[in-house]
Amino acid sequence: MTIYNFSAGPAVLPKAVLEKAQSELLDYKGSGMSVMELSHRSSWFEDIIKDAENLLRELMAIPDNYKVLFLQGGASLQFTMVPLNLAQGKKALYVSTGSWAKKAISAAKALDNVEVEVIAACENDNFNYIPELPKEVDPSAAYVHITTNNTIEGTAFQTIPDYGDVPIVADMSSNILANDYKVEDFGVIYAGAQKNIGPAGLTVVIIREDLIGDAKIAAPMLDYKIQADNNSLYNTPPTFAIYMAKLVFEWVKEQGGVAGITKKDQEKAGRLYDAIDNSDMFQSPVAKDARSITNIPFVTGDADLDKKFNAEALAAGFENLKGHRSVGGMRASLYNAFPAEGVEALVDFMAKFEQENGGK
Amino acid sequence: MTIYNFSAGPAVLPKAVLEKAQSELLDYKGSGMSVMELSHRSSWFEDIIKDAENLLRELMAIPDNYKVLFLQGGASLQFTMVPLNLAQGKKALYVSTGSWAKKAISAAKALDNVEVEVIAACENDNFNYIPELPKEVDPSAAYVHITTNNTIEGTAFQTIPDYGDVPIVADMSSNILANDYKVEDFGVIYAGAQKNIGPAGLTVVIIREDLIGDAKIAAPMLDYKIQADNNSLYNTPPTFAIYMAKLVFEWVKEQGGVAGITKKDQEKAGRLYDAIDNSDMFQSPVAKDARSITNIPFVTGDADLDKKFNAEALAAGFENLKGHRSVGGMRASLYNAFPAEGVEALVDFMAKFEQENGGK
Repeated sequence: MTIYNFSAGPAVLPKAVLEKAQSELLDYKGSGMSVMELSHRSSWFEDIIKDAENLLRELMAIPDNYKVLFLQGGASLQFTMVPLNLAQGKKALYVSTGSWAKKAISAAKALDNVEVEVIAACENDNFNYIPELPKEVDPSAAYVHITTNNTIEGTAFQTIPDYGDVPIVADMSSNILANDYKVEDFGVIYAGAQKNIGPAGLTVVIIREDLIGDAKIAAPMLDYKIQADNNSLYNTPPTFAIYMAKLVFEWVKEQGGVAGITKKDQEKAGRLYDAIDNSDMFQSPVAKDARSITNIPFVTGDADLDKKFNAEALAAGFENLKGHRSVGGMRASLYNAFPAEGVEALVDFMAKFEQENGGK
Repeated sequence: MTIYNFSAGPAVLPKAVLEKAQSELLDYKGSGMSVMELSHRSSWFEDIIKDAENLLRELMAIPDNYKVLFLQGGASLQFTMVPLNLAQGKKALYVSTGSWAKKAISAAKALDNVEVEVIAACENDNFNYIPELPKEVDPSAAYVHITTNNTIEGTAFQTIPDYGDVPIVADMSSNILANDYKVEDFGVIYAGAQKNIGPAGLTVVIIREDLIGDAKIAAPMLDYKIQADNNSLYNTPPTFAIYMAKLVFEWVKEQGGVAGITKKDQEKAGRLYDAIDNSDMFQSPVAKDARSITNIPFVTGDADLDKKFNAEALAAGFENLKGHRSVGGMRASLYNAFPAEGVEALVDFMAKFEQENGGK
């Protein structure tokens, strides 16, 4: 049975990347060592981390005045590092568009000397749209934080706000490399790797150099300046995860870069949204103008029927299709590595299920 | 050419473990998914992390009143987390036995509300022995921090101090699972994985439950209580690294557990120390009663000769034998997975080099 893995993360990886990793797992390029066994100070690994950075710079067209950091701790640690580094003694503005945005807000509020203000929110409506943002914000604010794609709720920012000198900080964990956002529209971009980049345990941070300040940070590992000055090698980085990211970046480049992969992502998402919209049984709980192309929740409106669908889908090889417990129903995460044929198979399965269960 | 990898970390892994990981890299136990693609909330991964914990508990005979945490950020992040969680508003005592101990001390000093006191040090003598410790310490101190094995300097504590109610906190990164220390002699043990446990990007913390307090921690990810309450799943953990650790723990068990592997480690180290002690060319810079069995520095006393040795050794397939820049000379890291035949090969090579270069 073919397995299609709709996991929201850690998520499906390109098969070609896994095969490459498998083929050199015991002997990286004739070194006689696994990548996992390479010293992070060796020229072997120096090449890997440099290549990973250069490929990401090329794919995202990252300007020279941005640093690329390979860190640990996930987006969750960035929820603290961002205000700690950028907003001590200042006001930090947040847009609350989902569960993860709320966690970012809560982490910022936990810091004594950061004044947190939520400038837009849509929680009252189960976060099923992107709220309208204010035209202007306090020009003395350290930043405006947004979550470009809301993994659980299935919404995404279609345009990035522009507040002049107040930089946009973005949690891009679930749609980095799956959109045509311009890096220069952001002050900081961060992303946990485990969706579109590689295995869990790696966090990518892209930060405009002038935002790497001299804030007093009592924890060296949480200081962007220390991490940037040491080119992500202040201590031992997650070497194998960085190697996997490099392989994924190479694969994205082969797919036609971000433009090429985004086109495929849009086609995959379009196919599923069409099936949902044309069905009498399935609906999308998300406002049309806010739809994510990477995380697509859908429901029947009947909890028992959702349950039946999920059970039969799982038995048919559709893994991790069950919706997040806070939303219910189903959720198909269609990251870059998710194959188009998996979407076709799901759409066919949905039609069959609808027919068998009293649908048209 | 056979490659022997003497890296101090990330270090050599058991070949059988790498082969196992390779064989199931694309399909974990018939799931149709790579371990890297498993949701961290799936029953597949729940079994992996539980097995890893149970195996470690068995190997180290960890008492029930200790929590085992699988975290990110390396020992370097623990340098901050330990005082942040255990010593705010208190005095924290440190033993300064090497470069890493100094980093731990410096991270603790960076915290405003922790009073750091170094109770013993040996820096004036290049850290080449373990200093005598005071008989008693301030009973109100939060803990006494030691580094059980000093990776760079090649020394190790042969006995663990006992200060009654003042717990011992140990950075055991470079000799966890390579000694017969008793967990109950410690309040906290932490270790970066990349020496005796698995790939870089995973940190193991073993902490006595009564030490997981209610300290005010402004960063959720740095709070032992949050991590413990969530069984290391507060956010997405480094899933593949935890899987690799599980495979390494299984392998250690097959080697006769910690007792079995430690016997082999002692034999490997003994063979190399004998060769050094019986040579007229090579010497150990470390006091005999403080010798590490996992990290063994040695020198000729002549920087040019060291350089020649390192160049010829590298050409002969001995990787990462060059000493740390702060010590010079050579350093052989003989972690659990380092094969005995690699030590034999090195000893033979050293004898040949000595003969060819004017030695006896």
